[in-house]
Amino acid sequence: MRTKVAIIGSGPSGLLLGQLLTGAGIDNVIVDRVGRDYILGRVRAGVLEEGTVGLIDQAKAGARMHAEGLPHEGFSLAFDGRDHRIDLSALTGGKKVMVYGQTEMTRDLIERREASGALTVYEAANVLPHDFDGLKPYLTYEKDGSTQRIDCDFIAGCDGFHGVSRKAVPERSMRTVEKIYPFGWLGILAEVPPVSHELIYANHARGFALCSMRSRHRSRYYIQCPLTERIDDWSDDRFWDELRRRLPAHHAEALLTAPSFEKSIAQLRSFVAEPMRFGRMFLVGDAAHIVPPTGAKGLNLAASDVHYLFSGLVEYYQDCSDAGIEVYSRLALARVWKAVRFSWWMTTVMHRFPDAGDFEQRIQEAELDYLTHSRAAATALAENYVGLSY
Amino acid sequence: MRTKVAIIGSGPSGLLLGQLLTGAGIDNVIVDRVGRDYILGRVRAGVLEEGTVGLIDQAKAGARMHAEGLPHEGFSLAFDGRDHRIDLSALTGGKKVMVYGQTEMTRDLIERREASGALTVYEAANVLPHDFDGLKPYLTYEKDGSTQRIDCDFIAGCDGFHGVSRKAVPERSMRTVEKIYPFGWLGILAEVPPVSHELIYANHARGFALCSMRSRHRSRYYIQCPLTERIDDWSDDRFWDELRRRLPAHHAEALLTAPSFEKSIAQLRSFVAEPMRFGRMFLVGDAAHIVPPTGAKGLNLAASDVHYLFSGLVEYYQDCSDAGIEVYSRLALARVWKAVRFSWWMTTVMHRFPDAGDFEQRIQEAELDYLTHSRAAATALAENYVGLSY
Repeated sequence: MRTKVAIIGSGPSGLLLGQLLTGAGIDNVIVDRVGRDYILGRVRAGVLEEGTVGLIDQAKAGARMHAEGLPHEGFSLAFDGRDHRIDLSALTGGKKVMVYGQTEMTRDLIERREASGALTVYEAANVLPHDFDGLKPYLTYEKDGSTQRIDCDFIAGCDGFHGVSRKAVPERSMRTVEKIYPFGWLGILAEVPPVSHELIYANHARGFALCSMRSRHRSRYYIQCPLTERIDDWSDDRFWDELRRRLPAHHAEALLTAPSFEKSIAQLRSFVAEPMRFGRMFLVGDAAHIVPPTGAKGLNLAASDVHYLFSGLVEYYQDCSDAGIEVYSRLALARVWKAVRFSWWMTTVMHRFPDAGDFEQRIQEAELDYLTHSRAAATALAENYVGLSY
Repeated sequence: MRTKVAIIGSGPSGLLLGQLLTGAGIDNVIVDRVGRDYILGRVRAGVLEEGTVGLIDQAKAGARMHAEGLPHEGFSLAFDGRDHRIDLSALTGGKKVMVYGQTEMTRDLIERREASGALTVYEAANVLPHDFDGLKPYLTYEKDGSTQRIDCDFIAGCDGFHGVSRKAVPERSMRTVEKIYPFGWLGILAEVPPVSHELIYANHARGFALCSMRSRHRSRYYIQCPLTERIDDWSDDRFWDELRRRLPAHHAEALLTAPSFEKSIAQLRSFVAEPMRFGRMFLVGDAAHIVPPTGAKGLNLAASDVHYLFSGLVEYYQDCSDAGIEVYSRLALARVWKAVRFSWWMTTVMHRFPDAGDFEQRIQEAELDYLTHSRAAATALAENYVGLSY
């Protein structure tokens, strides 16, 4: 088989890139080691920047998002028992974010892709990128008992943190930076209206809590927990009790509960691999970088990578120029590092660190106080939250 | 002897408070363990916020400052071999800072005090505050071989970090927070025009450097150094060489040198004692809090403490109300913590920390990049640098 762009991974970044390429008349094939149902069963992020929304629209997969998604013009920072609203729209000249589950966005892109007739190979075992440092890269994988090969011009590694793309790069060609945070997020999904129509980020002596949602009827709640916690030790009741303790009283009283249908503990990590281009292979999204979920930058960073890579590929095929491809890594990483910094900062400001001394604790309180009393500081938060320009 | 307000310490905060009180017709006496010449020989800070300038004017000691001081409308953040100007005035609606040495400001206040006839007792040994938890506090000290006593309504502890005021407070009544930074500042004074007409804060792989000045003909330069350095190991030549290495090339080439006439190593510390009022004794300035010199907040914080305390004392004597005294500690500390946060942040962003890993280093670079590309972030820096409103 031959295609122009072979995409490893059918998560949101692979699907988004694929549909943008298809729309621009650039052949592409997506290969994934797992199946369609597995992908649609994953619970992930849910807050989209306007740039991400624009790319989904450009991929012609935005209709349901605009019908069902929830535009948010602000969120709450809760501490000292009170809400402090960050008015995103007022601070950024009218910008918003869109609350729409990654699962739903993925479903829309898959439907779009299926309608367009572009090929996705699911359940492909041992996917491997080859010869990407030369002019004739190709992928191999195993399916139905035989080894398959896809020859291509370029490979896009959209296969996440644990994927094969980054692992296929020789260590000496790559530099990685990592930080593991000393806590996790215990998260649940429940079919119940959210406690507030906007997100609540709560800093409490017992630890961080986040009240988020996927829709008007589905809530996504998180609490900071030690990495040593076991999910089996957290009954729904224990979770709801702990969440209530960390929220301002009026929210705790208003909180509606229901049996959870998903419950998991996520580790918080910052990770960046550089560069993001290796000859004719590009790393995209989680394959190259991970941010802690505070501030919801992960999926949006994947989208901005797609934006830069798509621009470069269009320039290559339509203008016969390598220029956009040459700058992909530099442009993508400049934005990645800004979001890594922001996610680290917001994580640092909102969580209780087990090793923080009195000074660090007081600095955190001073930072929250400053943030909610300085328009400049609130604007810096808001402009990062809605997404820095591409 | 009897007075209304007994002030311990004849540094800038004691002198400023004293002259404001004298101007309002409130009797006061300043007592200091050292002599006038010692005080005038101290080399200290040199960047004044507009609020501080306003207080000096209010104390009628501003004439020479306005004639000889240098108003600055911006400064430079130097990194990656380049200058990045922070335009303070453009970012803060026209605000400035005033470069005028603390030594000069102290001299002006002393002259003013001498002209007003208010009493300053120099070289007073064993100064001690007494009974400040009651209604009849008093000071004792030894001078000319006998113990003297000053009865007063209030005691103002303006005697610095190592002074007796804070030490006279029972430990159980006070809470302290401290952070020691893992480096110092090696600073020199030289009679030579400054390398640039504005301050340069340089972040370099070899460590932080600061090009400051006291006048158009007197430069004040600093370099970050390990706390283990001995001043004797730093010849002028070695200092100038090291400073040049840390500056962008065009500054290094333009740097004029001269023999230093002051050279010292200062430890960097953040420290806050709370509360700042104990019955009828108030702590003011360094007696209650220390910030690292990055961002020049120390003297300005002392001035804002003086502002709040002066307001409270005027209210007490003119309106017969305790209200202003009651809120002194709360108002002063709210501003103190904002400056502690800012000084800590600017220190963190500008210095190389010996224990920083790759992640911390890259976050610092991302922060500098963001700071010089986001108007909101630069505004937050600028509004703190020129001084948050009282």
